[in-house]
Amino acid sequence: MELLDKLNWRYATKAMDPTRQVPQEKIDRIIEAARLAPTSSGLQPYEILIVKNQALRAKIKDVAWNQAQVVDASHLMVFAAWDNYTPERINHMFDLTNEVRGFRNEGWEAYRQQLLSTYPGRDAQVNFEHAARQAYIGFSAAMIAAAFEEVDCTPMEGFDPAAVDSILNLGERHLRSVVILPLGYRKAEDDWLAGLAKVRRPLDQFVSEID
Amino acid sequence: MELLDKLNWRYATKAMDPTRQVPQEKIDRIIEAARLAPTSSGLQPYEILIVKNQALRAKIKDVAWNQAQVVDASHLMVFAAWDNYTPERINHMFDLTNEVRGFRNEGWEAYRQQLLSTYPGRDAQVNFEHAARQAYIGFSAAMIAAAFEEVDCTPMEGFDPAAVDSILNLGERHLRSVVILPLGYRKAEDDWLAGLAKVRRPLDQFVSEID
Repeated sequence: MELLDKLNWRYATKAMDPTRQVPQEKIDRIIEAARLAPTSSGLQPYEILIVKNQALRAKIKDVAWNQAQVVDASHLMVFAAWDNYTPERINHMFDLTNEVRGFRNEGWEAYRQQLLSTYPGRDAQVNFEHAARQAYIGFSAAMIAAAFEEVDCTPMEGFDPAAVDSILNLGERHLRSVVILPLGYRKAEDDWLAGLAKVRRPLDQFVSEID
Repeated sequence: MELLDKLNWRYATKAMDPTRQVPQEKIDRIIEAARLAPTSSGLQPYEILIVKNQALRAKIKDVAWNQAQVVDASHLMVFAAWDNYTPERINHMFDLTNEVRGFRNEGWEAYRQQLLSTYPGRDAQVNFEHAARQAYIGFSAAMIAAAFEEVDCTPMEGFDPAAVDSILNLGERHLRSVVILPLGYRKAEDDWLAGLAKVRRPLDQFVSEID
């Protein structure tokens, strides 16, 4: 399967070539893969920010263990989850669904009411953690899409989320950063990880059957 | 890009054909996609269980809003994250890395010590939430792989995780269920969602550039 080849090709790039730009149409398809990825109840409770401003990227690098890819990569994607589920956010997606499909479905409306009666009343941190997990589905799809485009990337959790939220004013938008993804092209000669074997637990330590 | 076609093809299948089995080689490649997916520090802090026992699947259905796909699907995958990060689990992955690559790297060993000095001392719930996010990366890869195999699936969070943990004795293995994925073939004539338009927020509500 071609997908397995792509997954074997990709790796967490440690050195990006600052002189190479990823064409916009590749970035567009990587974003589209994330947009099409499924999320719980179809709510898509996160947004993607593409940070182009180099001064902001330098500030992010300062709160991301000084990892050079943050500034050297062609593009920097930030996945930011909703800080909470609100009736407005839930209703927006249900209304959009009705609009796109051109009809109201009774079961779907009952499901809307069920979410409205449970999600907004829960603790904001519980809701944020749930939203963050959904962002990871799109994040995974974006990394796979990058591999299909032969674009390198570096999945990064090693940053101070509160500091990034502050640098990008995410609080105003009721978003919280969860993971960042520099996209670009590897500079293999400076990258200690390029060419090293990919390490994964063997199958018998990863999957088991319950008969 | 073929990946976008696959993402457009897939949907959360609401009715599975109980008479159709997914060939084992397709299941193997779906698992392999999850196994190859990246995780934070390469720890792969989750496992996949394939539940074949129909009596256990019936019990899981009872705690999963009675969703029929749990029993009607060909296979049921359960993604279960580590309940905590321990020195043993962290050391296992670092030792495996050294074994596979055939050398010890000073920077890598320093990174091991950094994780050992931080992760195990954190609150177990914080560690579990972190591990659960990693499971979602593999979960997303598995859904995409299923689409490449023309296998239908239903991403499901709608179940009682503690009850599933108890049914599958996951506590003994220090795992906690986070998401389940029935795999099989749609029974389109019984599926209210089959054929309906996929709904996603438009790009201008999903992505923004920061110049």
